Parts: sequence; C-alpha cells; structure tokens
Amino acid sequence: MPAVSSAATPADEPATDEPATDEPTVLIGALPPMWLRDNCPCPECRDPHSGQKLFQITDLPRELAVASATPREDDGAAVTEVVWSPDGHRSRYPAQWLLAHRPGGTAEPDPRSEAGKQLWRAADLAGALPQADWATYLAVPAERARILQAVQRLGFALLRAVPTEEGQVLAVAETFGFVRETNYGRLFDVRVEPNPDNLAFSAARITPHTDNPYRDPVPTVQLLHCLSNAAEGGDSGLVDGFQAAALLREEDPEAFAVLTRTPVPFVYRDARTELTALRPLIGTDPLGRIREVRFNNRSIGTLRLPAAELDAFYTAYRTFAELLLRPGLQLDFRLAPGDCLVFDNTRLLHARTAFEQSGARHLQGCYADLDGLAGTLAVLRRGAALDELHGLDELAELLAGPGAAEYLGEPVTIAQHMLQAGALAEAAGAPAHLVAAALLHDIGHFQGPVSGRELMSGTDNRHSHTGADLLARWFGPEVTEPVRLHVAAKRYLCAVEPGYRARLSEASEYTLQVQGGPMDETEAAAFAALPGAADAVAVRRWDEQAKDAEATAPDFEHFRPLLTALLRR
Amino acid sequence: MPAVSSAATPADEPATDEPATDEPTVLIGALPPMWLRDNCPCPECRDPHSGQKLFQITDLPRELAVASATPREDDGAAVTEVVWSPDGHRSRYPAQWLLAHRPGGTAEPDPRSEAGKQLWRAADLAGALPQADWATYLAVPAERARILQAVQRLGFALLRAVPTEEGQVLAVAETFGFVRETNYGRLFDVRVEPNPDNLAFSAARITPHTDNPYRDPVPTVQLLHCLSNAAEGGDSGLVDGFQAAALLREEDPEAFAVLTRTPVPFVYRDARTELTALRPLIGTDPLGRIREVRFNNRSIGTLRLPAAELDAFYTAYRTFAELLLRPGLQLDFRLAPGDCLVFDNTRLLHARTAFEQSGARHLQGCYADLDGLAGTLAVLRRGAALDELHGLDELAELLAGPGAAEYLGEPVTIAQHMLQAGALAEAAGAPAHLVAAALLHDIGHFQGPVSGRELMSGTDNRHSHTGADLLARWFGPEVTEPVRLHVAAKRYLCAVEPGYRARLSEASEYTLQVQGGPMDETEAAAFAALPGAADAVAVRRWDEQAKDAEATAPDFEHFRPLLTALLRR
Repeated sequence: MPAVSSAATPADEPATDEPATDEPTVLIGALPPMWLRDNCPCPECRDPHSGQKLFQITDLPRELAVASATPREDDGAAVTEVVWSPDGHRSRYPAQWLLAHRPGGTAEPDPRSEAGKQLWRAADLAGALPQADWATYLAVPAERARILQAVQRLGFALLRAVPTEEGQVLAVAETFGFVRETNYGRLFDVRVEPNPDNLAFSAARITPHTDNPYRDPVPTVQLLHCLSNAAEGGDSGLVDGFQAAALLREEDPEAFAVLTRTPVPFVYRDARTELTALRPLIGTDPLGRIREVRFNNRSIGTLRLPAAELDAFYTAYRTFAELLLRPGLQLDFRLAPGDCLVFDNTRLLHARTAFEQSGARHLQGCYADLDGLAGTLAVLRRGAALDELHGLDELAELLAGPGAAEYLGEPVTIAQHMLQAGALAEAAGAPAHLVAAALLHDIGHFQGPVSGRELMSGTDNRHSHTGADLLARWFGPEVTEPVRLHVAAKRYLCAVEPGYRARLSEASEYTLQVQGGPMDETEAAAFAALPGAADAVAVRRWDEQAKDAEATAPDFEHFRPLLTALLRR
Repeated sequence: MPAVSSAATPADEPATDEPATDEPTVLIGALPPMWLRDNCPCPECRDPHSGQKLFQITDLPRELAVASATPREDDGAAVTEVVWSPDGHRSRYPAQWLLAHRPGGTAEPDPRSEAGKQLWRAADLAGALPQADWATYLAVPAERARILQAVQRLGFALLRAVPTEEGQVLAVAETFGFVRETNYGRLFDVRVEPNPDNLAFSAARITPHTDNPYRDPVPTVQLLHCLSNAAEGGDSGLVDGFQAAALLREEDPEAFAVLTRTPVPFVYRDARTELTALRPLIGTDPLGRIREVRFNNRSIGTLRLPAAELDAFYTAYRTFAELLLRPGLQLDFRLAPGDCLVFDNTRLLHARTAFEQSGARHLQGCYADLDGLAGTLAVLRRGAALDELHGLDELAELLAGPGAAEYLGEPVTIAQHMLQAGALAEAAGAPAHLVAAALLHDIGHFQGPVSGRELMSGTDNRHSHTGADLLARWFGPEVTEPVRLHVAAKRYLCAVEPGYRARLSEASEYTLQVQGGPMDETEAAAFAALPGAADAVAVRRWDEQAKDAEATAPDFEHFRPLLTALLRR
C-alpha cells in the first residue's frame, strides 16, 4: 500500500469524527496530529521502563503534520510508521493500538461517575447481596476482584466471617488500599458514648447519610466491621445515592440543577478540630454526569445565599430528602458479628435504626479511598485467568441486568434478542467467533455512556463501538470487529440489497435514520473492503431475525464454554 | 416593639435580597422560613453538646410560616423569639446571629477556590517567602497559624532548620494533619534510583507539574524535606497554578473553557499498582471559580474524544503549558538541608532543574490533606490572642497586596484612599471605632468574591458587606456596621442632602448607579432609623474626601495600636 502523502493530512482535509475506514494507515490522515504525536511510543518520547512521557507538549513543533505514513512490521506485528514534518521524528504505532484508541464519537466515560456504575433499588439486590467469605476473599484473587468490582459498580460489598477482633477493620482496608486517617483516628468505634461529639456514637436512629461531608477531600470508601450486635434494633440500611439523584433529575430537573450548583456548607466542630467544606449536594463531572453525593442532615451548616436562592435550595433539598426516604430505595439488612461492610462513601448513603442501649452493639470503622481500590482491582485483573472468569461473569451480569430487560420497540427484550441471535448463528453452523459476536452484538446498548433508550429518542448511542470496546477487554478483533461494524452493516445492506430495508422492523427502520440512513455508493464500497465486513454482514442477518416473541433461546450459560475458548490469554 | 404578624411572612410578601432594615425582629419577615427554621438553635433541634442537627428537613411542616416574632432577652443578650405555624415550635435567634448570617447578595466564597486565595507571581514574593524556623513554629502557636495560613492563602510555606533526620517529614505533616499513605508508602525518597518507576527518582529536569494527578482524590498537600543537596543543579521552582489559570481565562477564555470541561486521563502503572483518573486540567466549583489544577506531562494518558474536540483540547493544552513556563510566574529557590516545603498540590506546580548525579541530593516527601490543615488552623485561631496578632497582620497584608494597589478610576490607589480616610477621621477627633471604620471601609474591594475591578465594569461587588463580614472576625459591630452601611450612606446622602451628589467623583457617580442610585423616601427613612446610620454617614464623608493625589497619609503601622485596642477578646 502506498504511503499517505502529506497532502492527505487534516490540515488539508477536515477530520471526521468517524473515519470511513478501519485500515490503520489510511486512518492516520484523519487523526489530530498533536494527539497522535503526543502518544508516540518511541523510547525518546516515552521512558521504556516507567512508561512516563519524556517531553513537554511545548517541545513539539507548532506546525506539526504527518509527512508520510507507511505500514511496517515490528516483530511480526503490524505497525504504521509515521514520519513527522517539520522535525523528521519517526513514530511507530501498532495497528492494534490505533484501532483501540482512535478518536471516538463520545468522551470516555468517567468510571467514578454514574456512567461507570450499575444503579440499583433494594429489589434489584434482594437475595443477591454482593458478598464473600473472608477466608475465600483472602485466598482467591478472583474473589477479591469480584468483591472490589462490586464496590466499584454497585457501591458496596459485604465480607462475612471476618475475625471479630479489634483493629481487624484496618486489615480489611489494607487488602485493597490505604487507610485514610482522620481526626477520629485510624479507626473509630461506633458504640454508645456519654456526651458524644457525633451522634453516630449514640443510640439514636441515624437516617441515610454520607459520612464526613465536612471533609474535603471526603473519604471515598468507608468500612464498618461488626464486632457485636446484640441490641434490639440497630439494623443497617443502604441507599444508592446515584440512583436517587438520577430519579430526581428525571422527576424534577430543576431541583436537580439547583442541587448541583448550590455550594452547601457542612460543618463539624469539637474541642480539637473544626472542619468545614462548601460543596454541592450532588456533584457532577464536566459532562454533567452524577459523580458525588453529599447528604447529611446532622452537619449541614448555615447557607448564605440571596433569599430567593435559599427558597429554591430548600425546596430542592426537601424534594431530594423525601426521595431518599422513598420506599423501595433503601436496602435493609442486619450486620452480624464478623460482617464487614465496604462501601463507596461518595455514592451510597448509610443508615441505622435506633437501638436499645441495654444490648451491646459495637462496630469499628475506618476510611480509605477508591483510587487505591481501583488500582488493586486493575492489578488483579492483569492476570488473564481472572479476566477469563470475571469477564464472563460481568457479561452474564449485564445480560441479567435491568438494561438488557428493555424492549427498545421490539417484541423481545434486548437479552432475549441477543440470546436468539447467538442461537441462530450456532444453528447456522457459524464459527465460534461469529456465534460470540452474534450473541454479544448489542452489549453496548446497556453499558455505554448513552443508553439504548436514548437511541430510541433520536440520539445515536454508537452502541456498536462502545460494545466492541468493552468486549476488547476479553476478546480479539475476530469477535469485536463484527460487533463494531454491525450497525454499518445494516446501512450497507439497505444500500446494496434490494428489499432488505423493507424487511426491517419498525424500530430498526427508525434507528437506521438516527444512525445515518443507507450508505451511499462510496461508503458502501469502502465498507465492503474492510476486513471484518463479511462477518459483520452475517451477524447483521441474524440480528434482523432474532426478534421472535415466540422463540425460546438457550441462556447465557449455554454459551459459556464457547466464549471461554475464545478468551484472550 | 409589636410582634410581626404572620401576614408579614414571605408567603405573602416577596422576600428581597437585601432587607431594608438591620433590625432583627423586622428582618425575620424577609427571611426564607425553611432556612430560618433549619437553623433553629434550640436543644430539641440541635444537640447541645455536639452541635449536630437532630431533625430531618422532611420532619418540618411543609407550610412552614412565622406566626410571630418577638424581641426578648436571654442572659442579657438580645434574641428574637419566633413562634412557628402550624406546629407552634419556638425558636430563639440571637440578634448577633441574625445580623451575621442573614442571606446575602452573593454566595459564600469557597475557601478552596480562587475566591479564598491570594494569587501571586514570582516578583510578588521576592524577598518575602512565607517561612518560619522549625523550633519557633513548634513553640509559638501564632507562628504555626501564620505558616498554615500561608499554605492556605499563598499555596505554600517553607520551614527552616527542620532536623535532617529520615522520617522527619512525617513529623512535620503531623503538626497540622494526617499523612496520606499511597503506593509510594507513608513517605517517599526523592533521589536517583536505578530504573526508576517514576522520573522524579532520576536526575532529569522536571518541569512544573502537580503530583499524582492519576489519583482521585488527589493528595491535596505535599511536603518535601531536604536532607542533603550537594549536587550541581537540582534547584526548585513553584508556579501558582491558580494565577496561571486566571491569566488563561483573561487572555484566552475559550482555551480556559475547553480545559475546564475536557476530562483528561492520567495514568500511572508499575508492577504493583495501576492508577487512572479522568479529570479536567482546570477544575472549577459550581460557580465557575478555579478550584483545582492538574498538570503533569509525564502521566497524561491517551484522550478519547471526537477528533474536533481533540484539536481544541491540544490547542488549549499547549497554550496553558506555554503560559505556565512564562517568565515571571515561576518562583525559583534552592532547598538547603533542613528546609521543608509544604504546599497545596491542588494549586501549586513544582519543578526542579536537572542535576549532576555525582553530588548527593536527597529529599523525603509525603502527602497530607488541606482539610486537616484548615481544621488545625481554625482551632489555633480560636484563641483571641492569635486572632489579635494575625487579624492585624492579615489586614496589613491585604493593604500591601495587589488588590489595594488598584485605582478604580480615582487619582489614588485603594490603599492610599483608605489610609487617607483613616487619617481624616483621626484629624477630626473621631472616636477610635470610627477611625478604624474609615481606615478599613473598602477592605471588601480586594478580599471578597467579586473584586473592585468588577464593580467598575458594572457588577455590584457588595464590598461594604463582604468587608464588614471579614472585619467581624476581629471587631465588634461598632466597627463593622458603619463599614457595612457606607455604600447605603452614599445612596442616602445623595437622596437627602442637596448638592451632595454633584460633589461625587466621576467613579463614585458611576458606582452609585451600579449600587442602586439614590434612595427613595421610604428607603432613606428606613436607613436613618438604623442604629449605625449616623456613624456610616460620618465615614462616608471622609470617604468622599480621601481621594487627594497630593496628600500624604500615615502607613498602616501608625494605626496598629488603635486597632489593637478595638480587637474583640
């Protein structure tokens, strides 16, 4: 293939969001040159040992452009060699990296925001608390990963049979991170104290709240380890604050907006300390997604605002407070001796019922942080064996979750639709990778930043891309690329195959329009030339058929051996 | 005074931002009832020991209204007793509390944001580094407070002659907060290592950066303790990232906007950990003020965005990077053995020059958090003696700072104007509290959230209120209230005194309009009835005269004994 001349760089041709081809060398011309150069992997640009960048952005020539892009091989792997103008620097980008990192249609979702979470109500977790036995958790890395992932995705997990020894809660925190010491010490005791500085240390009922909202940075993880709980009452409750905030946004967008923009003072004072923080009750990321909830009636301070804004704040505050107490949101359980609850204090609110002072109730708690937890989980996941186990568990969980239970205008749910597509591929004698692609093709509808429901109201959720990106964690391009192209395949088939479009379901016809309509001739020719095009077309045909309300399909477990064989080692 | 009937509550009469009177009982009717009730100090509503709130916002009646408000006395102090409808609850609000906390025209500034900081360039601190001797810092609470306040307001301080013992940096952190342990340990050594995981541990030049941007929450305080520095090179530099971000906003508002809204991935990986955070380079609070800067060329990861957004990001990123390297911003110094630098890692960027590996250079560092530091400072300030010392130092510092060097359309700077006003009051034989009020009346121009410069472009900065609120930390109402009313006094004098308005300076005539113009008859009558009105009018007259470019005025130190005598104990 000839090198791309510098005439084809973005300086001359406007870059499009969606390169028309997946061929890496051709792709180069569509990429922002500063971004591409900033990601040069050569040992002059990036320390080979630490992986840290060795240059400043200001070190790069201002008029940076791709002089040539040439396909090469490095140790048998396809790379694209770029020669840069004006400085003649050479960069070699692995084809895999280019495919995986090319600019996408949406910003990367922040895993700390709602985009990285599975929101829940009490009923969603009834009988399915994320929990593990302490000994197993310690012995089996996969169990540790599962529990830490639950804290990340659901906001909490429960460890059972943790030794009821004082100070043990610190050992639990140290399995995944670092204890955040505060004015309460490295750990704190939750039991009845005379004249407590904090009502947590009384026998009173404590309504749902987050801890330490008067601290900034707030501790992002909390642990509560039950040493004894013989008192009448003193049961625990958890509320998913992200779910509550999302409900508020749905039901009362103005109240939601007020709570995201009003800084609220939280205050704590005792003889030795005095802490204040001024933060909104609902913190959002720069894209407006829910990222942090602070809620604590005990420590909310005196707001200083114009009177009209105070009225608006109090109306919104009350609405949110009522929502948090709404039946169905709070998951109730009782901590038994040996239980250790680990939860995300930026998301979950915790509560306890009042208890009789006569019975002993003693918890020990400590704080830690989500970044350490995420780091531990990432390292645990490096082992392919773990990815194997948990990748499939995660997919199973997604297919069983609320997102897959949507219908999106079809007579079957997305989960039924996907299982049917997999079964059709299998029945057709397709190779394993195509069965997997057919089975998993719509996974992007319920894990990406924009849901399938939004697609149905006219916003392209690019679910084929987000799905393929997710699947790339566990599967090679033989699975991910047909998934990535299955939407393009519909646009292609409608263009080239007489009668195809007329057979689309009503919902599929609607989304066709949202996704750009049938391809024109040039687009269709470019699509047909792509390596994965034929596979994508095959997946697409099963996709159209897999909408039969009468059909029965095998469940996810049926496909597990086939999927396991395809996992990347 | 008769009780205010429920007919005068905000339910019937719209609340105004600025109650027309300062008389507490009358004020009640203008206050948002939910806000007022949420702040009820009675022992049923607020735990007398812990100060924590005992009720939920949802516990309050929905149709809450003030049934009556009656002036009373509690132990000789004026209080307003409110009886609430419909539940008959009684609240007693101290008159002082009502005056100090009534709803204001602007939201409370977040002390973590630029509103709570003194921004600087290198020249502003030349020869005036915030520093203290370790022994004095330990022995004298006022010195500790001064150093911690420097970290809060300037972003850093330097402790000298700290024992050059390993681990000593932890003892320094423990004087004001809690060590934040990370994957680098409780402390880390900065010296040359073979094959370092982090380039900090090499001899390379390190350009201005913040630490650990891949951590979330990021450590908000960093300490660096120099144990030896015999190498050639290895000098240190600090850049005020808030100042740089403010310059970017001024010079290139679009680049600033891009950097506040683009989430940037930062990445760190080694054998045992893997950390990523997705945050903007410039974090703002809900009001759009600069609150956090993250900048580290070594650990910035691969952004995934639409191509057009990547181009915009890289352009803005480069502009900011160039600005950070602009001459005049970076404060250069050399850490000598025994020096310990303490700095705000959410604001200051630190740098070091390359050094020769032959000479020994060994620093030890650790992380801590700003909330602990602020809490320690708040407790230190509880002592009136400290407030006395440091309140006046703080005022002296403000008057010598860049804000007071503005002219705001007059022939004299604000500092000259204030010193002249104090001198005129003194020459007129005014009582001490009026000399103080005249001297300090414009302090709100350069410490509040909206600057005097903004007033001159048409936004009322409410400087009389922000100034009075600041002064209330050290002075009683005899000083603060004439300051609070000095703007109202102009509006009053222009209304009632023939020829007064014609004598206003051009700038004062302009601000008169921004501030609401002359009072109408009702307003003027209400103003004249206020307790501090006569004093405010006196201050106002000196204010108008104190704009003489030819006059010489004594400096701040001249007034220190008079001010010291007025300080609240």
